[in-house]
Amino acid sequence: MTSNHEEDLNESHFLYSILNPKSICIFGANNNLLTTMGSMQLRNIIAGGFPKEKIYPIHPRLKEVQGIKAYKNVLDLPKTPDLAFIILPPRIIPQIMEECGKKGIKRLIITSGGFREVGTDGFELSQKINNIAKKYHMRFIGPNCLGIYNGWYQPEIIKSHFNTMWIYYFPKRGNISIASQSGTIACHTFWQANDWAVKIGKSISVGNENNIDLVDILEFFKEDPQTSVIGLYIEEIKRGKEFIKLVKEITPKKPIVAIYAGGTEATTRSIMSHTGAIGGNQKIFDAVFKETGIISTDSITDFLYYLRTLSFAQNNKIFTNGNRLGIITDSGGSGSMMVKTAEMYGLKVPEFSEYLQSEIRKYIPPTASACNPIDVTFDIDFLNMFLKFPKLLMKSNEIDAIIIYGVFDFDDVMETMSKSGMYIDETMKNLSQIIDLRVLKPIKRLMKKYSIPVFYVGPYPYRYPWYQKFISHDVPIFDFWDYPTKCMSVLAKYSEYRKRFN
Amino acid sequence: MTSNHEEDLNESHFLYSILNPKSICIFGANNNLLTTMGSMQLRNIIAGGFPKEKIYPIHPRLKEVQGIKAYKNVLDLPKTPDLAFIILPPRIIPQIMEECGKKGIKRLIITSGGFREVGTDGFELSQKINNIAKKYHMRFIGPNCLGIYNGWYQPEIIKSHFNTMWIYYFPKRGNISIASQSGTIACHTFWQANDWAVKIGKSISVGNENNIDLVDILEFFKEDPQTSVIGLYIEEIKRGKEFIKLVKEITPKKPIVAIYAGGTEATTRSIMSHTGAIGGNQKIFDAVFKETGIISTDSITDFLYYLRTLSFAQNNKIFTNGNRLGIITDSGGSGSMMVKTAEMYGLKVPEFSEYLQSEIRKYIPPTASACNPIDVTFDIDFLNMFLKFPKLLMKSNEIDAIIIYGVFDFDDVMETMSKSGMYIDETMKNLSQIIDLRVLKPIKRLMKKYSIPVFYVGPYPYRYPWYQKFISHDVPIFDFWDYPTKCMSVLAKYSEYRKRFN
Repeated sequence: MTSNHEEDLNESHFLYSILNPKSICIFGANNNLLTTMGSMQLRNIIAGGFPKEKIYPIHPRLKEVQGIKAYKNVLDLPKTPDLAFIILPPRIIPQIMEECGKKGIKRLIITSGGFREVGTDGFELSQKINNIAKKYHMRFIGPNCLGIYNGWYQPEIIKSHFNTMWIYYFPKRGNISIASQSGTIACHTFWQANDWAVKIGKSISVGNENNIDLVDILEFFKEDPQTSVIGLYIEEIKRGKEFIKLVKEITPKKPIVAIYAGGTEATTRSIMSHTGAIGGNQKIFDAVFKETGIISTDSITDFLYYLRTLSFAQNNKIFTNGNRLGIITDSGGSGSMMVKTAEMYGLKVPEFSEYLQSEIRKYIPPTASACNPIDVTFDIDFLNMFLKFPKLLMKSNEIDAIIIYGVFDFDDVMETMSKSGMYIDETMKNLSQIIDLRVLKPIKRLMKKYSIPVFYVGPYPYRYPWYQKFISHDVPIFDFWDYPTKCMSVLAKYSEYRKRFN
Repeated sequence: MTSNHEEDLNESHFLYSILNPKSICIFGANNNLLTTMGSMQLRNIIAGGFPKEKIYPIHPRLKEVQGIKAYKNVLDLPKTPDLAFIILPPRIIPQIMEECGKKGIKRLIITSGGFREVGTDGFELSQKINNIAKKYHMRFIGPNCLGIYNGWYQPEIIKSHFNTMWIYYFPKRGNISIASQSGTIACHTFWQANDWAVKIGKSISVGNENNIDLVDILEFFKEDPQTSVIGLYIEEIKRGKEFIKLVKEITPKKPIVAIYAGGTEATTRSIMSHTGAIGGNQKIFDAVFKETGIISTDSITDFLYYLRTLSFAQNNKIFTNGNRLGIITDSGGSGSMMVKTAEMYGLKVPEFSEYLQSEIRKYIPPTASACNPIDVTFDIDFLNMFLKFPKLLMKSNEIDAIIIYGVFDFDDVMETMSKSGMYIDETMKNLSQIIDLRVLKPIKRLMKKYSIPVFYVGPYPYRYPWYQKFISHDVPIFDFWDYPTKCMSVLAKYSEYRKRFN
């Protein structure tokens, strides 16, 4: 299947038109950006760069909504918009949908809650909107959802996006796509995602899945050339058989990370009031995840970190050929902790051969250690630590993955020292250029050449400029030593899984 | 035992004089702040506010070190300093110690590596320095350590501290004290600690423990009025019996969180080359931790978060009376995830009584849920969520702990909306004052009154001003929904453990 063909396939999918409408009408927005959710959502659509002249607010009284001409009724519109976005009290929705149907609108997002998740009345209403959609051949997301975020709405404009969610913040665009039965997991994650360099391109809050469900979204993501890693938040699976079959086709090419939030009495209660789903059994889900190659977790931090790791692997086509980990560190403590957690997560930390150790010993102080971890102790020659040693390890054929602890923001270190009266010479001032040219570019080439991932780790928060450099080169950097081993283990397991199909 | 008496006891302990020397001599510092570790360490001692006229650098050639008059030999000093800080090649150290002994110096920190952790030669050298210490009745920390950080060096000056470590960054002062067999765990944690509001007052890197070991430090922390929570990083325990006896006395009053980094073949190798310790058996350590009430983890993030949680509990004397958790959320997804992890970690999330549910329903939309979690759905009345509902829950006697999801930085939200053209009135502009007076102060009082901890959670990183407000009131705030349940479970377990002794 060629890439072009894939793109064709993709554009013909009904989800393509929901993610990329050329015109939109919106029900339920007014001028109060704080107390009306629909207003915040319209505000976000405008702020994302959607052409204002292609937005049609529908409002019974207002003549203008957020500076845009409003219409009393969808039937009054000069054109038929590609998408209707509805956030109104649930009772009115059937009537609105009827009118949309008459106008010829085929794609909708229904944000409003108040359907099956509230009990009997909601069930009836739910059935009603399903029937209207059927009658007019409509496809819709929701109800009880936040809709969609599409960072690829106008790919050529960097910060442009199409965002129907009420969260006004948005992530840096990447190859990660999310489908979620929770609006929160679909968008409250954006702040931390940006801090941690988790690049999300698309996110879909599916709500109650009356019409479009996870299986539909996965079908779309499967063929979507902008999606290469998929994140799922699951409270129930409606079409189990189709889900399993489809996921089995996807995971060998595009890894899937999933959170399943059900499985206990209290979660069942919580889920029932959330999306109205009847919670499932944890063991069944564990079995499904195992069978289909889905990587699962109960932690939102894990979720984002695993997506980030697999996004890196997919972007650069770097998958491990085994689970032998080499560790390089300037700190015994974090080294030991990483050895321990690496083993806990199923990686091996083998002792290096005598030959490899003797090669390494040439470059480290006599009090340092070369056996694995390589512990250079206090040694500021970061070119050794960051490039020479990983290169020696890669060539040795003794390891499949590398983690290096000891990334400081040396510019910050030098600024501090300079304030304390130290003269900083030109070389030192240019260190941050040296890291670009003499570490990050070559290590990236080496990673690809050997298919050996190298994760860098340090104690600084990500906002420090040196860490941002690693991020800009798409070289994995971690702000603490818990996640590198956890993520490397996920990458090694996924690499092994993937190999079965190649 | 009165508080005054405790302080007396404390000052007479030999560790008191190491943490609070009035004068210090330093071996191994020069004017190169980047390549010589000792120079960075002296720089930090100066930057922390140690009186320059009480610092005596010892250097064979330099007349001045970092602007301070240097002496060729410790015997030349006009006075006997309280503490000698030594970072020199290991071979010279016996001679230096002899000279210190002759000068009458009784307290030392020996940073240099190159002792038992490097094998036979190191063992001999190690024995030698032990004998010299014995001969002169010296007590010393190290070798192979970073020494100490004392944030309470001059308690009346806010940012003043005494820092012999090479990390130039320092944490906000608090009641957490750390003793670590890794210099990294003793100080590389400072950046994240500050970001996460983990307030560390003292941190001691014990190195090879030739003379002063964990048991000594714990004896000191036990009586130290500035210490109420203790963090340990352990690669081995030298005096097992004494350790167990002492820790059993401490944990009912001061909780201890520990990382044990050994327990496998590879960690044994890693530890051997780090501090020279012979690794122990994981099962033995697990049994010791259980018997002594130590809270243990293999994660550095857990470590800091547990310390933070227990620091809050100790500061405010808020301990739970059971493990029944009430959850309040404006998001079904994070609510469900917290229910699930809470149960995983041993908490209960009971359904509220009909009466309590009817009380809550008065204030929430009809589509919202009152059963536990309370899911208010989209509702911007944060006074209900943040104060009224937790108050109702506290009074109900149905729960022992509360977690609330939905803290946004509303100033940031309003700034964004204001940029989009919305008029923000005076009340809205003053929201951040309202949260101070109408949420944080009253909830703190309620927490103390009922001894029911309330943890607040949201999706923003800690740096946002609203989160800083929570931090300044010492009201626990979490930047994501993984750690609140984990930490609440630790607090509930510790509270139960503590009750056994009261």
